[in-house]
Amino acid sequence: MELYYHQHILTDPTLPEAEAHHCINVMRHNTGDQVFITDGKGTLYEGSIQIQGKKKVQVADVQVLRKQEQKRKIHVGIVPVKSTERLEFMIEKLTELGVAEISFIASRRCERDRVNTDKLEMRAIAAVKQSHNLYVPKINPMIALNHYLRATTSDQLYVAALTGDNPQALSKQKLSDGSVTILIGPEGDFTDTEMEDIILSGYQPVSLGSHILRTETAAIYSAVVLGIIQ
Amino acid sequence: MELYYHQHILTDPTLPEAEAHHCINVMRHNTGDQVFITDGKGTLYEGSIQIQGKKKVQVADVQVLRKQEQKRKIHVGIVPVKSTERLEFMIEKLTELGVAEISFIASRRCERDRVNTDKLEMRAIAAVKQSHNLYVPKINPMIALNHYLRATTSDQLYVAALTGDNPQALSKQKLSDGSVTILIGPEGDFTDTEMEDIILSGYQPVSLGSHILRTETAAIYSAVVLGIIQ
Repeated sequence: MELYYHQHILTDPTLPEAEAHHCINVMRHNTGDQVFITDGKGTLYEGSIQIQGKKKVQVADVQVLRKQEQKRKIHVGIVPVKSTERLEFMIEKLTELGVAEISFIASRRCERDRVNTDKLEMRAIAAVKQSHNLYVPKINPMIALNHYLRATTSDQLYVAALTGDNPQALSKQKLSDGSVTILIGPEGDFTDTEMEDIILSGYQPVSLGSHILRTETAAIYSAVVLGIIQ
Repeated sequence: MELYYHQHILTDPTLPEAEAHHCINVMRHNTGDQVFITDGKGTLYEGSIQIQGKKKVQVADVQVLRKQEQKRKIHVGIVPVKSTERLEFMIEKLTELGVAEISFIASRRCERDRVNTDKLEMRAIAAVKQSHNLYVPKINPMIALNHYLRATTSDQLYVAALTGDNPQALSKQKLSDGSVTILIGPEGDFTDTEMEDIILSGYQPVSLGSHILRTETAAIYSAVVLGIIQ
């Protein structure tokens, strides 16, 4: 099944230009063909296309086909890695795994000044279209750790701990439905002062298993674990 | 901690050329410096280096520092994806996650004739050196599905099922220590006939959650789950 993305399909029948291009020039659709559309917020629609120019497609007779629930909202807060390739790969994997929100954090040992959230969102949209998970994660621009800590609320708050007083394993935690946040530091981890602030903000240190994982692997590992533990 | 790889460190004191290059030209070590070496089979050694030329390093006074156990041997059997980048990324992640063995399988819908196992092994060795997981996974060259099914034995055998009669979730399985294999099909899955052969060979179909995962994501997801379930 081929899937198009249009955030505001219910209020605006015109497909975004990139989607229209795909529909006309790649898939070679004609007026009257039925297509599937998601809003990236959990709803799958069906509609009939009307080609109105080389780059313009409108969708008529839009109907809701299915709503996908997101019982547990997983939020990954992460100090971004330097490699754009690794960052994009991570976004793709977190989207496939159904993560609801991704925040980028500037910490002392962060190796980046900024992240291109528009480009990352495009990668997430591509992953939604490919995986048929109907949620595009909310991708937040980079903010300082202390702002992040003040702004973030969640039913459960965890921080990945490389060291510390024998932290419990993330995989052994008990979760209810609702929201859960996992915070992941940079290569070389958060500084001691940062970790104190994080713990004072209510985050419980947890271990991500016995191996040292790369930052992006830690995020993917956490998304899998938080998706399956009860 | 900087880690060198030498499979036969106990019987041959000479570091492989790439490792010697790293030691002399990148890390700028001198004779007498202490270094850490792993055999990729779970043992960490310490030794003292002797530089014997521009590309030759020998290690003297080799001592065992630590042995890492691998209680559960995870074997991922997978039909390889077309993109070499995705394949290499998968190998890196499976190595970080401590997978013991990776087999590449030619199935009807496979999009590759071969995989370059030497190159993938280099990527796995790099991941071992980076993650300090002391096991380089055994990477098997591509073989036909029926040969693979005949050759593979494991205490538990699972196959990722996209469809079928409501397969149980992999995350709900009970595992003992020992060996476990997860078999993952290509984009478009195994054919019905192939799936029959797989099930007749003793593989239990399991679901990998509610989303459609890319092949390499399915492998990473399975490695995380098989690493944490009891």
